[in-house]
Parts: sequence; structure tokens; C-alpha cells
Amino acid sequence: MADVAASRRFRITPEREAELYAAVLDMLREVGYDSTTMEAVAARTRCGKATLYRQWGSKAELVVRAIRHNKPVSIADVDTGSLRGDFHAVLAHEDDSAMERRSALMRGLVIEMHHNPDLKCALRELFIEPEMGELSRVVQRAVDRGEVRADNPALDYVAYMLIGALFSCTLIDDRPPTQAFLRSYLDAVAFPILGI
Amino acid sequence: MADVAASRRFRITPEREAELYAAVLDMLREVGYDSTTMEAVAARTRCGKATLYRQWGSKAELVVRAIRHNKPVSIADVDTGSLRGDFHAVLAHEDDSAMERRSALMRGLVIEMHHNPDLKCALRELFIEPEMGELSRVVQRAVDRGEVRADNPALDYVAYMLIGALFSCTLIDDRPPTQAFLRSYLDAVAFPILGI
Repeated sequence: MADVAASRRFRITPEREAELYAAVLDMLREVGYDSTTMEAVAARTRCGKATLYRQWGSKAELVVRAIRHNKPVSIADVDTGSLRGDFHAVLAHEDDSAMERRSALMRGLVIEMHHNPDLKCALRELFIEPEMGELSRVVQRAVDRGEVRADNPALDYVAYMLIGALFSCTLIDDRPPTQAFLRSYLDAVAFPILGI
Repeated sequence: MADVAASRRFRITPEREAELYAAVLDMLREVGYDSTTMEAVAARTRCGKATLYRQWGSKAELVVRAIRHNKPVSIADVDTGSLRGDFHAVLAHEDDSAMERRSALMRGLVIEMHHNPDLKCALRELFIEPEMGELSRVVQRAVDRGEVRADNPALDYVAYMLIGALFSCTLIDDRPPTQAFLRSYLDAVAFPILGI
């Protein structure tokens, strides 16, 4: 799915792509996933519907690529020389209100995917799996540097610790995660269990 | 809300209460939250609608009490003498298929509560807050026994670690948590970070 889309996408400029993604995110916030139809995106962005389908294949793919594009930084592009530095650098790219806006969008899609198999499939293939891959590579770099022991049993659970903190915060405290909460969680749980 | 309901509930026997809760859970699985109306519950259980409202006050409260009643054991009722023993004893009360059924129900309600303020309020007051209270007491018992140091910074994050593992499993692996996964997570993350 990813490669096909990449080969399709050369037809529009990165600026135009960013503009389209921003419009899709605005529509998701304003009217929700169901009403963010390809027709409505085409009308709002003055882009032909055929072009949208040619570039993205489906609404689910367009939405998920818009969401992923919205990430302020990819953890794979950060390399501070330490795992603590890498995670803190990623957090520093966003303030609490930007994180709240992004969390609300993600939460909406995670809820929506439970009764929308196309969206679930696109979220898995184009968001969750690549993100998990990037996280693994960043953690592996820390192992290769000797920061984390290769036989640390917690290595298998880094993603669960991090994703879990993001979601359980909303459930337990009825508020989106903040910078301060995530930093404290990393310092109290994730770093010490990895021996950092 | 809890006390008022407790004082209301003496009017039916515990057996009848359990029967009603079982019917509500069956209906949630079969037709979902929206269609599990008080009318439909009354018809299915041959119970007057007025009685349902007198006993539970609202559909949201009835549903949440049914869900909580469905837990195989309350962690507050387990006291093996060690925190590891307590958590493992709770897990041992349910096999993977029972846990999968219960997870699916919980996930459905957590999704539903995002656009249903009454349900959200009932879930918070009658499920999440009491469960968090019980968990705190069990962890505090371990601190009082000297198993966990009172100044361990991870103490503030036990609930996030556990709830997070339950939900992130579904998101990351696209499957409900299993006994084996939760045991390994406890052994690799939760117990070591608490110094157990």
C-alpha cells in the first residue's frame, strides 16, 4: 500500500500535498470522519475527485496519511545520541495544546476504526505498523550503543508502555496527556525499567 | 450516586439482580448500547420499567453496574500476602476467552462514552474511580508490608501501566490481551519497576 501510494504521489507538489492534508484534518475536526467524504474534500480543496482517488486510492488512506503528516516530528529523524534525549526531543516538538488537538484527532479515528474495517486496515498499515517500526529502530540504536542491555525483558514492552500511557491518561484522568505527565512517566517508569 | 443506588437496591434479591445484569450484558453484545433501552431490558427480563428506574436511576447506571458485576473478582477481595501474588490471583480468575469477551464489552463502552456524557459520567463514578481506589489500596498494602518503597516514583503510575497494557495490546497487536501477555508484562515491567 505504501509503495503504490508513493509512486502515485509524485504528481502533486509537497506544498499542495500539505495543503490538502491540512484541509482534511480541519474537516475531520469540524464534521467528523463520516462527513469528510472525498466529494467534500474535493470541493473544499478545489481538487478533482479523480485526482484524489488517483493519489490516495481511498478516503481511509487519505485520512491516515493526513494524520501521519500532521506529526510534528518523526522519532526516526531524531538522533540526539541517547534514548532519553531522543524521547525528550520528540516531546519538545509540541506544546500541550497542539498535543491535545492531535490526541483528540487520533482518539476520534481509533474510535471510528472499530466499526470501519477500511479505516482500521489503513491505520494499521500506514500508521501503527510504521510507527512501531520506527520506535523499534530508535530503541535498537540504544541497545547497539550499549545504553540498554540486549537481554532486558522490558525491551519487548516499550511500545505498550508508551502507547498505554497516552491512552490510559484520557481514561483514568479524563484529560489528554500533557508534556509534564509524559516526561514524569518516562522518568519514573520507561527509562528506569530500561536501566537508563 | 453509589450510596443512593445501594439504598435503592435492597428491594430485589441478589439472584434477581444477577439475572438482570446477565440479561443486560447479553443485550449489549447482541444489539449494542443504543438499542439496549430500558424498555427492551424490561421486556426481556419481565421486569417493570418503573422498577428498573427505581433500582438504577438510569440506563447508564444499570449498564455500568452490570459491567462491574461481571468482573470475576475484585482485586480488593484478594489478599495473598504479596503484590505479585495478588495480581496473578486476579488474572487466574479468568481464562483468555472470558477475558476476550469482557474486553470487547469494555471497549464498546469506552468507545460509546465518547459521545454519551451520561454513560461517561456513570463509567467514571461507578467503575473507573472505584477500581482505581481498590488498586491504590492493594498497592498501599504492599508499601505497608515493606514490599515496595514508599518513595518509589513508579507508585504514581501503577494504574497507567496496567490499564495502558490492556488497551495498547488491542491497538498494537489487533487482538485482546491474553493471560500470557499480561503475566509477561507484569513480570517484565510492572513488578521490576516497583522493586519486586
